[in-house]
Amino acid sequence: MAKAAASARQSGVSRNYPKGERRRAQIIEAAFTAFGQVGYRNASMVQLAAACGVSRAGLLHHFPTKESLLEAVLEQRELQDEEHFFPSGGAGHDGLVYFAGMIRLVAHNQANPVIVSLFAVLSSEATAADHPARPYFIARYERARRQMQLAIDDLAHRELLRPHVDPSTLAANLIALIDGLQVQWLLSPDAIDMPTHLRSVLRSLISVELA
Amino acid sequence: MAKAAASARQSGVSRNYPKGERRRAQIIEAAFTAFGQVGYRNASMVQLAAACGVSRAGLLHHFPTKESLLEAVLEQRELQDEEHFFPSGGAGHDGLVYFAGMIRLVAHNQANPVIVSLFAVLSSEATAADHPARPYFIARYERARRQMQLAIDDLAHRELLRPHVDPSTLAANLIALIDGLQVQWLLSPDAIDMPTHLRSVLRSLISVELA
Repeated sequence: MAKAAASARQSGVSRNYPKGERRRAQIIEAAFTAFGQVGYRNASMVQLAAACGVSRAGLLHHFPTKESLLEAVLEQRELQDEEHFFPSGGAGHDGLVYFAGMIRLVAHNQANPVIVSLFAVLSSEATAADHPARPYFIARYERARRQMQLAIDDLAHRELLRPHVDPSTLAANLIALIDGLQVQWLLSPDAIDMPTHLRSVLRSLISVELA
Repeated sequence: MAKAAASARQSGVSRNYPKGERRRAQIIEAAFTAFGQVGYRNASMVQLAAACGVSRAGLLHHFPTKESLLEAVLEQRELQDEEHFFPSGGAGHDGLVYFAGMIRLVAHNQANPVIVSLFAVLSSEATAADHPARPYFIARYERARRQMQLAIDDLAHRELLRPHVDPSTLAANLIALIDGLQVQWLLSPDAIDMPTHLRSVLRSLISVELA
């Protein structure tokens, strides 16, 4: 935990933000490490405050619940992933570039089992009608389907989808595939290589080879 | 809860088993209803014991933890689903019959959101290295992949798989698709119809129409 706090203090994230926002960004970064070290269920707000180098009251000021803190961590991860793997705004103007980036993202996830596991647990728990993160995940999946649809529409327009592929259900199906593979990979990392599986699916859908 | 207890007492499940096993089967059946009514996280062992019509000590004798009780509930559900949707031993000697059964099973799941949600949460939580249900889920997914592979091998042998489909990754991919669709459906039931999605995927993989 001490290490996470030190790293948050040294990282100097968001230097140009006002003090409150800078503190918020530092907390999110430290919480990312802390959740990864002790897991979501085992982490208490007191521990997380210590790991983030703030008082419990200071943490609660920014994040009233553990759920809201994890939600911010996952949102931050989503933003970073988009900047890194989908630099053209994540909108996927070029379907081939988009799906090549998706394979790289899945390979990158395979280096972060704890974060992948946190995401799987929270997205499942959030399906409960009264879960505080439910609206966030509904919006996140809608956004993901919409973005991927742009890439699929581009491939359809360029006639790069194989015959018998239904472009109207494909975005939800590919996102479901990626989510579901994470659980199988986390349980049996020697049996499942996620980028290999995604590439083999894309090969059956797209008529040219991806980079 | 009273209703669940009454239903367990009346159901007369497993009439030919010795008393201990019969009691165990009654508990599982009542717990299935109770988990569905109050959710997994909210259910306490005291409440579950009451719902199952046994003392807390009696419940702990059969199921020392809440995890072990839920595991038994899911195992029981798996058995019932197999008997119902894959009557030829679940082994899928005929690939077309197997996948037609899979579409029916997915349609059946769509009538049981709480159980689907429980399964999604527990399978994700079980990815943690120290989770008591981890070995169960590892074995369950291995078994599921192996069974589906028999159906895929049958289709490959009969040359019913479309070109560019890789039969070696297909079982894991289809199981992942079904799991991942559950989360999106639970979050946005109006946007996702699971049997429609599965059927459209199978149409892009298999060269004849399923029943």
